[in-house]
Amino acid sequence: MRALMVDTSLKWVDLPRPVPGDGEALIRLRMAGICNTDLEITRGYMHFSGVPGHEFVGEVVACDAAEWMGRRVVGEINAGCGMCAMCRRNLERHCPDRQVLGIQNRNGALAEFLTLPVKNLHEVPGSISDEAAVFTEPLAAACEILQQLRIDPDWRIAVLGDGKLGQLVIRVLRLTGADLTMIGRHPEKLALAEPLGVRTRLFEPGMTGTCDMVVEASGSSGGLEAAIALVRPRGIVVLKSTTHDACRINMAPAVVKEITITGSRCGPFAPAVRMLEQGLVDVLPLVTKIFPFSDALEAFGKAQHPGMMKILLDFGPRPDVLSQNQE
Amino acid sequence: MRALMVDTSLKWVDLPRPVPGDGEALIRLRMAGICNTDLEITRGYMHFSGVPGHEFVGEVVACDAAEWMGRRVVGEINAGCGMCAMCRRNLERHCPDRQVLGIQNRNGALAEFLTLPVKNLHEVPGSISDEAAVFTEPLAAACEILQQLRIDPDWRIAVLGDGKLGQLVIRVLRLTGADLTMIGRHPEKLALAEPLGVRTRLFEPGMTGTCDMVVEASGSSGGLEAAIALVRPRGIVVLKSTTHDACRINMAPAVVKEITITGSRCGPFAPAVRMLEQGLVDVLPLVTKIFPFSDALEAFGKAQHPGMMKILLDFGPRPDVLSQNQE
Repeated sequence: MRALMVDTSLKWVDLPRPVPGDGEALIRLRMAGICNTDLEITRGYMHFSGVPGHEFVGEVVACDAAEWMGRRVVGEINAGCGMCAMCRRNLERHCPDRQVLGIQNRNGALAEFLTLPVKNLHEVPGSISDEAAVFTEPLAAACEILQQLRIDPDWRIAVLGDGKLGQLVIRVLRLTGADLTMIGRHPEKLALAEPLGVRTRLFEPGMTGTCDMVVEASGSSGGLEAAIALVRPRGIVVLKSTTHDACRINMAPAVVKEITITGSRCGPFAPAVRMLEQGLVDVLPLVTKIFPFSDALEAFGKAQHPGMMKILLDFGPRPDVLSQNQE
Repeated sequence: MRALMVDTSLKWVDLPRPVPGDGEALIRLRMAGICNTDLEITRGYMHFSGVPGHEFVGEVVACDAAEWMGRRVVGEINAGCGMCAMCRRNLERHCPDRQVLGIQNRNGALAEFLTLPVKNLHEVPGSISDEAAVFTEPLAAACEILQQLRIDPDWRIAVLGDGKLGQLVIRVLRLTGADLTMIGRHPEKLALAEPLGVRTRLFEPGMTGTCDMVVEASGSSGGLEAAIALVRPRGIVVLKSTTHDACRINMAPAVVKEITITGSRCGPFAPAVRMLEQGLVDVLPLVTKIFPFSDALEAFGKAQHPGMMKILLDFGPRPDVLSQNQE
């Protein structure tokens, strides 16, 4: 099968079609998304060598569990050992020996086929298009905030960052009824949030505020210090950005203001699928361009440009499993 | 009155005895403690100019509220405006216009007299010695952790730092029943924790762990990164150290492990007084030396030496208010 491979560079390779292990499914790709983490990985983040990509929708083409055959699915990207303290607490995404699709010890979605444990799969309801379904993984990461924290609907919340993750976070937090402001550096990206009825502001260095909560999704190493300056005493900063670099930061204001900083990563897929199915979150305005998979290297080049939102890869003609599912 | 004053340096001055305002008490000092924050202030922290010192026990010698006259007291160090959103939520210590005794816009305890609002005062029960009562403020800062977080008595908790604050923190956290380890750089300081029945370990660079919670009380700018490495996924880091300097830190592990970092500063006095009264916490082993107030400059010099624990200042002969209180 054709696949993209990252080691010292990103390149095309021909790989044998993967063979699903016990409890695993073989999935033929329908569509995949390029995430900032994929870009970071091509620059050395996680020291990953293999097939990148973790945002996908596909169909099950081989599987011991017959009821999954032919279904259109998305899949949780962390595969734990199933036995450690974290796995036993249903926190496989924190298993110390986990594989992470396209990120750590498991080939990812930028290939014609991938394998995942069946327990990681979620069927995609027929009303969700491939273009929307491919957002399930990053939308789940936004839902993770709801799983970690109780959001008071009367809070004033700022989302720092107007990129893909910030856009998904503000779409999810908007459902809480909270008073939301998106703060970013790009008027054209801020404009994507305006139809949601939230406030938008251009970022200015030295901004201060008294927000009850600030979600740092700027992807910039200076974002944490900015978030600490924007939150009220005893407020909450949710740290979503993983940047490859260490940054210089003065943490004394976080102590003096008794701020709580919560790291937040992958999230639960089921609520993300429900939000897409019920039309609570509209992700399609975030798609900049869809490339055929054969143009994936060009798509990666495009994704690096400032101003891009989501770049998708289409794996082309395929049997219409949607209609099979509905039979 | 004789007072110590910090502006560009620390020096003796003669100041007029302060006049208590409405709702305030005039307090004659009995004993004061030197805190690391006082040392930081002499190096420019908070840009404070005035009388330093915020750990004290004294007696009320002038006050509109007659019932407070002659009482032996300790006092909460933050005086808020009483009107803002923080003050209305009983969080005067986060009032944006607060005065902080010996730290911000209010002369402190290294003088023969100080003033504080009566509402800040807590009477010291007769069974608590002056030497112990002067620990109320830092002990309250340790109790702040209990006010901010629910501590599961089955947690494994590490306290990073074997100095004065770390010692008080481990004495308070020990009362929760949790499994405690103190990690520090000084065998002779770690030895102070051993009679408590807690585990002690010498700090080694590159240490990792799976603690449920780590309290960073090392006073070192590298402490946060060390704490993040010692805590389990989804664990809690309590950040107690305020260091004057910015530090270089890679926050990606905090995001990947979804750690919660909580800044923690001043705390509630009432539980600290109860812990001293009931003998739940023994602070006297932490006293290195007691100087007469007239030797305060020498005491500050001594406090800067590595290996010092608490240095106290004794304000000398005074009427025995203890026996007055007990009449």
